[in-house]
Amino acid sequence: MSFETLWADQSAIGRNPETGGYTRGGWTPTEREATAWFLDQCTRRDLKVESDGIGNLVAWWGPADQPGVVTGSHLDSVIDGGAFDGPLGVVSALAAVDQLRRDGFTPRVPIGVGAFVEEEGSRFGMPCLGSRVAAGVLPADKALALTDRQGVTLSAALEAAGVDPAGVGPSPLLERMGTFVELHVEQGRGLTAPVGVASSIWPHGRYRFTFEGEANHAGTTLMEDRHDPMLTYAMTALAANKQARLAGARATFGRLSIEPNGTNAVPSRVIAWLDARAADDATLESLLEAITRQAVERAERDGTTVAVVPESVSPIVDFPAGLRDRLVGVLDGAPVLPTGAGHDAGVFSAAGIPTAMLFVRNPTGISHSPAEFAEEDDCLAGVEALAAVLKDLAQ
Amino acid sequence: MSFETLWADQSAIGRNPETGGYTRGGWTPTEREATAWFLDQCTRRDLKVESDGIGNLVAWWGPADQPGVVTGSHLDSVIDGGAFDGPLGVVSALAAVDQLRRDGFTPRVPIGVGAFVEEEGSRFGMPCLGSRVAAGVLPADKALALTDRQGVTLSAALEAAGVDPAGVGPSPLLERMGTFVELHVEQGRGLTAPVGVASSIWPHGRYRFTFEGEANHAGTTLMEDRHDPMLTYAMTALAANKQARLAGARATFGRLSIEPNGTNAVPSRVIAWLDARAADDATLESLLEAITRQAVERAERDGTTVAVVPESVSPIVDFPAGLRDRLVGVLDGAPVLPTGAGHDAGVFSAAGIPTAMLFVRNPTGISHSPAEFAEEDDCLAGVEALAAVLKDLAQ
Repeated sequence: MSFETLWADQSAIGRNPETGGYTRGGWTPTEREATAWFLDQCTRRDLKVESDGIGNLVAWWGPADQPGVVTGSHLDSVIDGGAFDGPLGVVSALAAVDQLRRDGFTPRVPIGVGAFVEEEGSRFGMPCLGSRVAAGVLPADKALALTDRQGVTLSAALEAAGVDPAGVGPSPLLERMGTFVELHVEQGRGLTAPVGVASSIWPHGRYRFTFEGEANHAGTTLMEDRHDPMLTYAMTALAANKQARLAGARATFGRLSIEPNGTNAVPSRVIAWLDARAADDATLESLLEAITRQAVERAERDGTTVAVVPESVSPIVDFPAGLRDRLVGVLDGAPVLPTGAGHDAGVFSAAGIPTAMLFVRNPTGISHSPAEFAEEDDCLAGVEALAAVLKDLAQ
Repeated sequence: MSFETLWADQSAIGRNPETGGYTRGGWTPTEREATAWFLDQCTRRDLKVESDGIGNLVAWWGPADQPGVVTGSHLDSVIDGGAFDGPLGVVSALAAVDQLRRDGFTPRVPIGVGAFVEEEGSRFGMPCLGSRVAAGVLPADKALALTDRQGVTLSAALEAAGVDPAGVGPSPLLERMGTFVELHVEQGRGLTAPVGVASSIWPHGRYRFTFEGEANHAGTTLMEDRHDPMLTYAMTALAANKQARLAGARATFGRLSIEPNGTNAVPSRVIAWLDARAADDATLESLLEAITRQAVERAERDGTTVAVVPESVSPIVDFPAGLRDRLVGVLDGAPVLPTGAGHDAGVFSAAGIPTAMLFVRNPTGISHSPAEFAEEDDCLAGVEALAAVLKDLAQ
């Protein structure tokens, strides 16, 4: 089947007609529909699907019972995200298999097409949930106790989806993952060729800032009598932006929870999540320190308090140079670039699996938005590149 | 019945055991329970209850079919509010009637005890909803179309509570409201005596600020490529605080709605509600202008947009000097002070009903918070003062 047909088919699933975006949190109806579509495509291709306890999937082509080359990505999305982030890697993997078969290629080592669950962490707040559990870096009990915004635990969500939570844990799928290659749309404007190869993933931290003050009447409380945590938060958001610019890094406050969140009440509490990334671990650490210091100083002025709790911190992932250079060779000197985005590839690489990533050009650099986009020609170049890489690794 | 017993009885209804606060939005179960309690108290006292289409209540004592002196307040609350704001006025009204009866007083003009619905506007976003509809300043069709945060219209909420929305409109209750006196806990630290008399209510505006930018990936989007409406909002929140201090006024951003509100996404939209109040209309207007100007300037820098829509603006209410002075005389020279808080008394006064307010001292000035408090002795002095005022006006 052509990439174009596969792409049109898949990207119709769960598109919000108002925004053009997708909200496919893990184990939600739209994500389940996309997964069902994937399983159907595997059946049509006579690929042998293996699943693990949390629901990661690898569909195999070629000789059984030996480690192989796995490629793929994820089908879940951020809230109102774009069409490409995740699905492009899965659809390109299927299309690359189709192309290799059309070319009459017979793999000497198996080729697996993978789809990993809840990569964005948009439902349970933990990015790369499926791969972290599979790799054993997130213990099953901690994973199962995670809750979504409605207070539903992962354990309950799995049960509701007909999955037994008792099976969640390190995944046998990884034992057959000899090499992992993830194709992904680039998420900045760093790639000017159609296809590139990843050098590293920036270190990435998510930190929960809890600002606490005193609820009070918005009309009667003198400004000087207030302990308003919203002000401490507001200054911290501006400080994060400034410090990230100074450090050549990234810092974002995109999610808040406010109590009581009433128009005529000074809030008692503002919880704000900081997403911070930098080119190396030391820069990330000093960025967090600078933001925290400014938050604490402002809290002293406002008569409020601030507590900072890291929710997840991923150190830098340097993809192995040998595999990377091999891909660059196959692709006639494709450009090499780092990324600020986290990926299952980073988790698998950190777990010791030889891992590489291919990027497809993003002309606007827009990502995690309905406006996320890649040209069709670049997507086709991505399939071509992935097929060449799989052929090289599986021959 | 003693004030203490009435107070203990009423304040047990809907108290959140975790925070000690109350969340009694209009037509919610806890607010309905408080209303049922009030109706039961009226029955026990053989007061004749009259209701209007939206559910405002006045319970009469004394000669029927002529205008009377109405006293009372509201039973709804802000989200996680205190025990006193509203209920103190209703409970004190019942206790004052009890005291006048114990004293053998016979009113020559009727005395009414009132409870007015959704004064805080915490559910439908419109403060003094019941009194505004009753006074005809908020048309029934606009009121019925208001929605709560779950998207439920007032019309649907009334139907769910067994009230026919067709009856909503200007209230016959006001025709019998010859004079209105509202007793209320003071909401700042402006009153140092146990009881005071209101001079005016500050003008008050609620404005919806909609900041729009571009959703994007928090990890990959260069800081300089972003159009992040959160930054524009954060600067605006700090500007509002500063401008209010400079103007001796009040400005609060206590409520936000963020899209998509995800940790790893630059937001596309931040909606923030500004509550602003000042000693006079001109100061309020120039305060809003200054905040809006700074928001617009920052939006230009951030590549975002900001739109400001007034949701409700109430001009200053100067209570009539004659009635005010009469109360001061009855109360042996009680102090006179303005308030920054809105009240049904302000709506009734603006509608031409001779209106006054009594305040009970608030030692901490904390309001709209579970920590809101008044000393029992001051509450008893409030009942005493209210009884004296009613006696004077109804004899």
